[in-house]
Amino acid sequence: MAMPENVKTHPDYPVPEKMKAWVLGDPGELNLVEKPVPAPKKAEVLVRIDAVAICATDLEIIHHGPPAQIQGGLPFNKNYTPGHEYMGTVVALGPGVDEYKIGERVTVEIHAGCGQCKRCRMGMYTSCHNYGKNYGDVDKGHRANGFTTDGGFAEYAVNNINTLIHVDDSMSDEEATLVVTAGTSMYGLTELGGLIAGEGVVVSGPGPIGLLGAAVAKALGAYPVILTGTRDNRLEIGKRLGADFVINVRNEDPVAAVRRLTNGKGVDYVVECSGAPNAVNEAAQMLNRGGKICLAAFPGDQVPIDVAYLVRNNIYLYGIRGEGKTATHRAEAFMRQKRFDASLIHTHTFMMDDLKEALRYAKDRVEDAIKVVVRNRPAESQRIAAE
Amino acid sequence: MAMPENVKTHPDYPVPEKMKAWVLGDPGELNLVEKPVPAPKKAEVLVRIDAVAICATDLEIIHHGPPAQIQGGLPFNKNYTPGHEYMGTVVALGPGVDEYKIGERVTVEIHAGCGQCKRCRMGMYTSCHNYGKNYGDVDKGHRANGFTTDGGFAEYAVNNINTLIHVDDSMSDEEATLVVTAGTSMYGLTELGGLIAGEGVVVSGPGPIGLLGAAVAKALGAYPVILTGTRDNRLEIGKRLGADFVINVRNEDPVAAVRRLTNGKGVDYVVECSGAPNAVNEAAQMLNRGGKICLAAFPGDQVPIDVAYLVRNNIYLYGIRGEGKTATHRAEAFMRQKRFDASLIHTHTFMMDDLKEALRYAKDRVEDAIKVVVRNRPAESQRIAAE
Amino acid sequence: MAMPENVKTHPDYPVPEKMKAWVLGDPGELNLVEKPVPAPKKAEVLVRIDAVAICATDLEIIHHGPPAQIQGGLPFNKNYTPGHEYMGTVVALGPGVDEYKIGERVTVEIHAGCGQCKRCRMGMYTSCHNYGKNYGDVDKGHRANGFTTDGGFAEYAVNNINTLIHVDDSMSDEEATLVVTAGTSMYGLTELGGLIAGEGVVVSGPGPIGLLGAAVAKALGAYPVILTGTRDNRLEIGKRLGADFVINVRNEDPVAAVRRLTNGKGVDYVVECSGAPNAVNEAAQMLNRGGKICLAAFPGDQVPIDVAYLVRNNIYLYGIRGEGKTATHRAEAFMRQKRFDASLIHTHTFMMDDLKEALRYAKDRVEDAIKVVVRNRPAESQRIAAE
Amino acid sequence: MAMPENVKTHPDYPVPEKMKAWVLGDPGELNLVEKPVPAPKKAEVLVRIDAVAICATDLEIIHHGPPAQIQGGLPFNKNYTPGHEYMGTVVALGPGVDEYKIGERVTVEIHAGCGQCKRCRMGMYTSCHNYGKNYGDVDKGHRANGFTTDGGFAEYAVNNINTLIHVDDSMSDEEATLVVTAGTSMYGLTELGGLIAGEGVVVSGPGPIGLLGAAVAKALGAYPVILTGTRDNRLEIGKRLGADFVINVRNEDPVAAVRRLTNGKGVDYVVECSGAPNAVNEAAQMLNRGGKICLAAFPGDQVPIDVAYLVRNNIYLYGIRGEGKTATHRAEAFMRQKRFDASLIHTHTFMMDDLKEALRYAKDRVEDAIKVVVRNRPAESQRIAAE
Repeated sequence: MAMPENVKTHPDYPVPEKMKAWVLGDPGELNLVEKPVPAPKKAEVLVRIDAVAICATDLEIIHHGPPAQIQGGLPFNKNYTPGHEYMGTVVALGPGVDEYKIGERVTVEIHAGCGQCKRCRMGMYTSCHNYGKNYGDVDKGHRANGFTTDGGFAEYAVNNINTLIHVDDSMSDEEATLVVTAGTSMYGLTELGGLIAGEGVVVSGPGPIGLLGAAVAKALGAYPVILTGTRDNRLEIGKRLGADFVINVRNEDPVAAVRRLTNGKGVDYVVECSGAPNAVNEAAQMLNRGGKICLAAFPGDQVPIDVAYLVRNNIYLYGIRGEGKTATHRAEAFMRQKRFDASLIHTHTFMMDDLKEALRYAKDRVEDAIKVVVRNRPAESQRIAAE
Repeated sequence: MAMPENVKTHPDYPVPEKMKAWVLGDPGELNLVEKPVPAPKKAEVLVRIDAVAICATDLEIIHHGPPAQIQGGLPFNKNYTPGHEYMGTVVALGPGVDEYKIGERVTVEIHAGCGQCKRCRMGMYTSCHNYGKNYGDVDKGHRANGFTTDGGFAEYAVNNINTLIHVDDSMSDEEATLVVTAGTSMYGLTELGGLIAGEGVVVSGPGPIGLLGAAVAKALGAYPVILTGTRDNRLEIGKRLGADFVINVRNEDPVAAVRRLTNGKGVDYVVECSGAPNAVNEAAQMLNRGGKICLAAFPGDQVPIDVAYLVRNNIYLYGIRGEGKTATHRAEAFMRQKRFDASLIHTHTFMMDDLKEALRYAKDRVEDAIKVVVRNRPAESQRIAAE
Repeated sequence: MAMPENVKTHPDYPVPEKMKAWVLGDPGELNLVEKPVPAPKKAEVLVRIDAVAICATDLEIIHHGPPAQIQGGLPFNKNYTPGHEYMGTVVALGPGVDEYKIGERVTVEIHAGCGQCKRCRMGMYTSCHNYGKNYGDVDKGHRANGFTTDGGFAEYAVNNINTLIHVDDSMSDEEATLVVTAGTSMYGLTELGGLIAGEGVVVSGPGPIGLLGAAVAKALGAYPVILTGTRDNRLEIGKRLGADFVINVRNEDPVAAVRRLTNGKGVDYVVECSGAPNAVNEAAQMLNRGGKICLAAFPGDQVPIDVAYLVRNNIYLYGIRGEGKTATHRAEAFMRQKRFDASLIHTHTFMMDDLKEALRYAKDRVEDAIKVVVRNRPAESQRIAAE
Repeated sequence: MAMPENVKTHPDYPVPEKMKAWVLGDPGELNLVEKPVPAPKKAEVLVRIDAVAICATDLEIIHHGPPAQIQGGLPFNKNYTPGHEYMGTVVALGPGVDEYKIGERVTVEIHAGCGQCKRCRMGMYTSCHNYGKNYGDVDKGHRANGFTTDGGFAEYAVNNINTLIHVDDSMSDEEATLVVTAGTSMYGLTELGGLIAGEGVVVSGPGPIGLLGAAVAKALGAYPVILTGTRDNRLEIGKRLGADFVINVRNEDPVAAVRRLTNGKGVDYVVECSGAPNAVNEAAQMLNRGGKICLAAFPGDQVPIDVAYLVRNNIYLYGIRGEGKTATHRAEAFMRQKRFDASLIHTHTFMMDDLKEALRYAKDRVEDAIKVVVRNRPAESQRIAAE
């Protein structure tokens, strides 16, 4: 048996000693290797990965290394497994864990804060001051699965229970991989205040976070929810997810359009998911005085911003990363209640062995790919096995 | 008697029918004229102006017109009296007013929100959606004294009681004119969270708001309070007001200095009062992850900003204008309790007839002028009259 | 024409000089009289009342006088018109009003704060410190329609625009009278934190606020929503409005039931709408540590409370009255979006002439009455007139 | 050497293998025994205890067992060491700890939340849902030193770094033991909103939390700060700590007195530290509408409360236990800055061998004892040893 004695397992969910996992080499290099199945420790479980969605950040990590904010520049790019939007089945429990059961379906959020730093103590675990410190003498217990610790492009992964969200039976594996995306949108709207029923929201940029941002805003009762973007097919999906209006910025100035749709008043919130160079300035112009902007995307370079406009109009900006403040749980609750159909953004499925092709689809948006999901087993057989 | 019947007056504080007031003409043109003393209406009082401080915004208004955010471009620049940092004595009460007494010393904040719009109903009266609507058919009751309605470069002014703050006897007239400045700093720190005892704060830019920002941060218990700027004499005053450390950015890179002073950790909050082109980026670099920036100043043009850094580090920015959320009252409380000596930034006093010379001192920083105060009467005689 | 010159009217909505109105005499005495139609002033409109629902507080006001918190004990009970849950059509605009149009359907909330006191300046207009001060020399502009100023058991009423909510065409008059009730529930959930998707909520007491409380909690994504009460028919309506579980406290101990339904964990929030003597203690026992209670009802007498339990378990209690913080607008947004069908609690309709019979139905719960609505015109004719 | 290999020690601070510690037996029974010095694990340090203050809760724990909220009723009363208001010197570091240094003086707060439950993830670690779960199979990592795990009536104690606060050199050992008390007051004021400069605060009950509550309220700029109690000597100390006014409730009705001192308006906040049977009702009557009460003490039995008054006046109550949300750090910051002299409430010092006599002084308030502190070494020798 692979697991240590203090780890609980169950005969219905046998855990092998070895597993297949994709592992990073040099930038751009991904290798499928065999390695030991890891064992969960205190407050951790072992998750058998059933499905994992590909995120634009995965592509960045694979080709350029993990985000730059890990100070000290350790060679994380090598020898670890990326992939952070995964879901699966709990198959082993670390010592003391009774919050989850073996056989339970779970999906994940990324960050397990250290629990010790100033921000973690405030509940801001995605702003953990020990980000990336999970090695040797400086192991502070921070985990960012698929970023700084092993993630989901594998058969199994260990997760801190703080990163788990129960998945309702009514949700498919593929839909469940989208909880963390919806959770990011929910986190953004949470930081903007959250009580937005009847208030106007613009979501700029119909990527996955933007599309589910429109859905979450609608679920929270916002009106109007206005989605802007450049591709009509995505805007159309945005409408089906809950956008009251869509604006193709190739056809119409989005600021003018928002003013028109709101009788000149502007909206109360903008969730900026486009990363376009002029996005912050446009967002500010779309707002009424005292409005708020969530920055969930960013351009590669510095961009000119009209700070005077922000100050004179009492505009607040919230740079958010990831899915903090337990927002994934709130997102899952709305998805379970079928307030919106997140699976509308799931376009393609591949088997794990074909990860490289799946990545190509995601990167090049082959066949208008939005969310590409990778599985370890075909959906049918797996659900049978789970019964 | 000048006042209508429903206005209360008192023989000890006789109100003349006419007064002298400085009035705006073409850009840059200020004329001293005689005009009727205005009468207070419901929820208003008449204030005899005893002292008024000059703010950089006054200079902008006089030379370029009021801030651009009044849409529709009405010719406010003509025929009204600027000056918004004034204090004085209540000499007449509008109908129903019992919140203040005749003879009471008061200082003012600028904004009386309409009380009807969405923001006012939330308590955000400085973000009033009816800003500037105080004329003819579109009078929504908004008042921004010295901005869109008559202000303090005169003998008398009418004020909504919402813009008044009681002034303690222990405070000089000159010090009392600084309450609104300290209130702006307090508002900024309020929006940043306010509970900052033991947390690190950088104030960038030792103008009046920055200097009193350091003082207010210290009064709230922040540590370390670090003030940055280019002029040693001002930084020295900052130290006397409460800054634990000062950094002359001509001598030392402020980001490196802040990191050094905080053992590499950075601070939790930056109150940006410099308006320097790279100020936002530097502020972000001074912060630890999850930190917050208050934008209380701004450069004239758009400036390049590293949005990616804000997003990746969960940084929030708060563009504030003025002195919202009753922060002036909290500022006055600290000043009354002598937590800091705001009068350290008061450098010069002129009589009202010499306003133009006073403005020159303020504009050109003659003799290192910081706060230039203008009076209608010499200090001594006035205090005797008040007894 | 009845209206002063500075009031705008429209020929399609002629305003008579006189109207019929129910007026309070001695306790318990209501008389139908003819009196002048009032004229709206600044920031006010005249509403032609189309429908008004009866609230338990109306019965209290009629029989015992208005709530005791008006200090000074003025004889409000005489000569004013109660009724505060009304809706209608805007038929005249006070000077400067452009926020609403003649012919627009509106429903109302109760409180127009003075806009000047400390609480109003914080956005807490239902806690106005000038509550009830709307007479003679102490008119501070506070209005609580149907409580301290003329309300809705009449043909017309004047309303401050702060008390108006636009009503969507898709909503019937009767449903629209319930917006203020749903708004009270929404205010309670707002004060509890509001971001409750996936969190457990108990609503105790299936009166109108409780029933719509369950509906609003569900619309915000709460799970489970548990409704407790003594009458199965009301609990059944609660289920149709959104309660996931109902508990008849005559059959089962509600604390035990809540623990059972939550796997022993308890819920995060209780909205206490029963006013039962042991309700606060039971609410505390239903919560997990750190949970919150909204007090929206109260018993007539002092009741024993286990303060030690509150302290040891970090429980917070929020006594709310009315529908503050613009919650009615958020409630209307959810109702417009058909997140729940508030009209399920509307059971009876009477004509205004039959108000006394309508009150009897409401008071004695004749035929299981929940919400009894009174109209000035039959529904059909009125809608035709409005076209 | 006593410590495991992965624990860091320093020759200047040798750690023995055995120590003396007071251990609980049957209720009321405390025995001084010799037992092994415990070793710190991940995120923990070993603290050499230099001083420990006695809290009323210690007396309760010793005589009646720990607070009732540990469900399941495990026999905690036996074989553990109480004492939770201690300070000392870090003498050993668990693996990975670099937040504190050997030789550093620290004081402690009580609760180390599990870091995994819903409340801990929100930053509410004093409301941890795994309170007391620190044994055998249900060890969730929660620690409440001196409550459910070994505390400070000993020579050494292990502490999670989350429970440590750096102590400035300017602070004596005795003063440092009071940081957690001031932190409790600070937590209460934090939950009330915290931005209280210029606002009125009543603190009822001049026990240690009440006395330091007056001090913290004053440090935050509150005015007036009114302290109520029955003993003039304590009220006098309250004045020296910062109370603007004191009321001896034996001589004057406290509600009337508060109304008198506030010109009839009442205060904005009450911090209830008396636990008197009518304290909540009186607190409510002292408040203006929309005011808030912090419940930091409680009577032994249920007490009658006027819920109607709370609801009608929009009053909120916050039951707090302990010193959450890092309030101890803010308290220490104010104490370091000498905003108030907490040592005014320290009245007696005993050596650890004389703990029983020290407890008698605290329990029976011998010689007007307020805070009785117990030391392992005389103050002088210890400070020399530390150099």
